[in-house]
Amino acid sequence: MLEIEVKACAGHQQVKQLLSAMGAVFTGVQHHCDTYFNAPHRDFADTDEALRIRSVNGRSVLTYKGRKLDTISKTREELETEVDGGNTRSILLALGFSESGIVRKTREIFRFENMTICLDRVEGLGEFIEVEISAQYANESDIDIHRKRIFSFLENFGIGEEDSIRTSYLEMVLEQGEDK
Amino acid sequence: MLEIEVKACAGHQQVKQLLSAMGAVFTGVQHHCDTYFNAPHRDFADTDEALRIRSVNGRSVLTYKGRKLDTISKTREELETEVDGGNTRSILLALGFSESGIVRKTREIFRFENMTICLDRVEGLGEFIEVEISAQYANESDIDIHRKRIFSFLENFGIGEEDSIRTSYLEMVLEQGEDK
Repeated sequence: MLEIEVKACAGHQQVKQLLSAMGAVFTGVQHHCDTYFNAPHRDFADTDEALRIRSVNGRSVLTYKGRKLDTISKTREELETEVDGGNTRSILLALGFSESGIVRKTREIFRFENMTICLDRVEGLGEFIEVEISAQYANESDIDIHRKRIFSFLENFGIGEEDSIRTSYLEMVLEQGEDK
Repeated sequence: MLEIEVKACAGHQQVKQLLSAMGAVFTGVQHHCDTYFNAPHRDFADTDEALRIRSVNGRSVLTYKGRKLDTISKTREELETEVDGGNTRSILLALGFSESGIVRKTREIFRFENMTICLDRVEGLGEFIEVEISAQYANESDIDIHRKRIFSFLENFGIGEEDSIRTSYLEMVLEQGEDK
């Protein structure tokens, strides 16, 4: 599965009013506790990969995200499987993986056309919008079309390409920890 | 979870007659396709660990087995979680793990007192008996008691400590491949 995704800072109150006016459909709210892991044999901070156990509403999902495939959006390969969170954490630690950080957030999810819009309130970081198009298979030209579609949609909220944040929540949380 | 386990060669026909006479309860038959993985940062053949995706009757389970804890039985820590088998395989390969081999077998399972008895017919290897006691927590003295219980049970089938096989099915399958 390929995930074409753009993230930016955005105050949720104004965004929600506009989403409602456009006819976007609210599909639910999730409380995420994301534990990120680093590998013993390569540093994901260098390779730009991510390995995460997401605990959401009592279920756990293990997700691997590959390297980002372009320089503007956060497009990357994403693989996931539902798991027993506690045992999967124990397996990863036994294999030599280490916990690199935890990100807690509340996510409100909307659908509009072929896009998923996530309004994330991240503990310690603030409010963000993430817009995502998922594609089973996509070549470079498809990715480009999807990315343009997302940026065209984000213009409605006064968000341009220059506002796109490629830094992950984990990196932001870790950076914030270093500043303290 | 700790798994105290002893394995030996045994023709199933005679074993089944004795199990039935002893009052052991047949609980089911499973068809296993076990894919084993090796790590990029250490060789499980040296460390005596195992990482496996077992596909059984349409479901998949990821299992990690730690180093063996004694020199007679196959006692070791075991951690597992149900997963999506295809995606978990893709995640392991993306992380740099490699497939080390596949073991296919039919397992008939019986319960007797606190023991699980598995009669395994392994593709290319033949017929085996595995007797297992699972313990949430166990110290050395508990392990010793459980192991003695298993060997005392195995005496009924003319199987002694000297017949205990600590080599895994995977190792046997790989050795057989080398001999060809």
